[in-house]
Amino acid sequence: MNKAIGVIDSGVGGLTVVHELMRQLPKESLIYLGDTLRCPYGPRSEEEIKKFTWEMADFLLQKNIKLLVVACNTATAFTLEELQQQLSIPVIGVIKPGARAAVKFTTNSHIGVIGTEGTIRSNAYTKALKSIDTGIHVNPLACPLFVPMVEQGMLSGAEAEEMVEETLSPMKEQSHIDTLILGCTHYPLIKDTIQKVISSQVKVISSSEETAREVSTILEFYDQLNEGEKSPAHRFYTTGEMGVFAKITEGIFKESADYFESVTIEKAVLLYY
Amino acid sequence: MNKAIGVIDSGVGGLTVVHELMRQLPKESLIYLGDTLRCPYGPRSEEEIKKFTWEMADFLLQKNIKLLVVACNTATAFTLEELQQQLSIPVIGVIKPGARAAVKFTTNSHIGVIGTEGTIRSNAYTKALKSIDTGIHVNPLACPLFVPMVEQGMLSGAEAEEMVEETLSPMKEQSHIDTLILGCTHYPLIKDTIQKVISSQVKVISSSEETAREVSTILEFYDQLNEGEKSPAHRFYTTGEMGVFAKITEGIFKESADYFESVTIEKAVLLYY
Repeated sequence: MNKAIGVIDSGVGGLTVVHELMRQLPKESLIYLGDTLRCPYGPRSEEEIKKFTWEMADFLLQKNIKLLVVACNTATAFTLEELQQQLSIPVIGVIKPGARAAVKFTTNSHIGVIGTEGTIRSNAYTKALKSIDTGIHVNPLACPLFVPMVEQGMLSGAEAEEMVEETLSPMKEQSHIDTLILGCTHYPLIKDTIQKVISSQVKVISSSEETAREVSTILEFYDQLNEGEKSPAHRFYTTGEMGVFAKITEGIFKESADYFESVTIEKAVLLYY
Repeated sequence: MNKAIGVIDSGVGGLTVVHELMRQLPKESLIYLGDTLRCPYGPRSEEEIKKFTWEMADFLLQKNIKLLVVACNTATAFTLEELQQQLSIPVIGVIKPGARAAVKFTTNSHIGVIGTEGTIRSNAYTKALKSIDTGIHVNPLACPLFVPMVEQGMLSGAEAEEMVEETLSPMKEQSHIDTLILGCTHYPLIKDTIQKVISSQVKVISSSEETAREVSTILEFYDQLNEGEKSPAHRFYTTGEMGVFAKITEGIFKESADYFESVTIEKAVLLYY
């Protein structure tokens, strides 16, 4: 089974999922599509988010993938169920893995969730957590500035810290959370800053890491892991500027030169354009 | 879908998986079978381990379970593949979940594994880890005294610590592991002692916690989670002395009075006896 795993995202955030997939499943080839041209999805309408997500899925299905990861929380919140119902391959979103990991980690049942406006508005994490355990107390907070911050490369330093501090202050003041879900795949890129601001006592969960873990579980369960020794080849597509995308990608994978050599970046032309 | 999850173990070790299942999947009913009469499985022959495991599986299949957890590393090492091939319900072992979690946590690719003689002899963890990533260095160590220690209730204190210290000394001296898999479901009961001996720098992974997490993933994927609000009812069977089993069970669930009220303990009469 040498087909690739497909990963779609509204932009570059899903690359944190790719990074974890490469680490946790080093034999698997990946095909990534980032809709950087139309990023962010967070503030968009449900209808638009669904339409864009289906366009991305269709693009990757043409490439004969064996599993689809919806590596964008906003797209997962609005479109995962439809995709799971209509596609014949397994489709994995980023919300349930983060929720499940949070339930595993929490000891006081108070869990915080930060995400884009769209994700928080969808209540997807609250529903996922409550469906596992009705006794969980959920503290959701929309952080609309974090995605633009990351896309601009502002990942640490005094200014970034100040912005994170200000955004998270309502959560720090009103809750007793012992676990915080990074409900947006951009956020692992500012995880250190978030951890510093929210206190070292709080377990910060990256939905990216947890999603990669579940892809491994599901592929093994379907007996579709790549058993061979062949080196994987990765292919990255962007709907936006290839130069900009390459630069950001290189930043994320800076410590993974081995992987990066096997990556091709191409321009994606979506069918519906 | 109100069927129960079935859990089999050679004795009481699998109760640590049950504990985590109750915590991570509080809506699910469980049926447990501990083969305390014939415990431990660790030193037994492959043939005997397979025969006993199938007898336990058959006993629970009669109870109409929706998923089977093989909560014993030794039984998983020798019988999981057969069970997965021959049963129509999902079957989950304790080895792959621990291996996957270890790969997620390690940063230096040096992973230690401790287990019974049978588990270590089977090389199951080494195979599981290498199949994920051939670059992983595995340090396996059999700890034949730990199961008898736990079954006797020796969980902490100077004597327990000394025994753990002595057993783990070859691993401490020869390896640079940053992650240690507790490759036996009895071991979470002495996790604090193991953590103390092996150093706080090493991430200790409980295959019990990780298995419960994967049961959640798989049940959700099969759309077989209990969606209702009905309180779960748990049923525990033992092939040995019910009084002894009840006492150990009570010890493990001492902080979970709510759960314990819903538990019935019965004597299991296996078909082949």
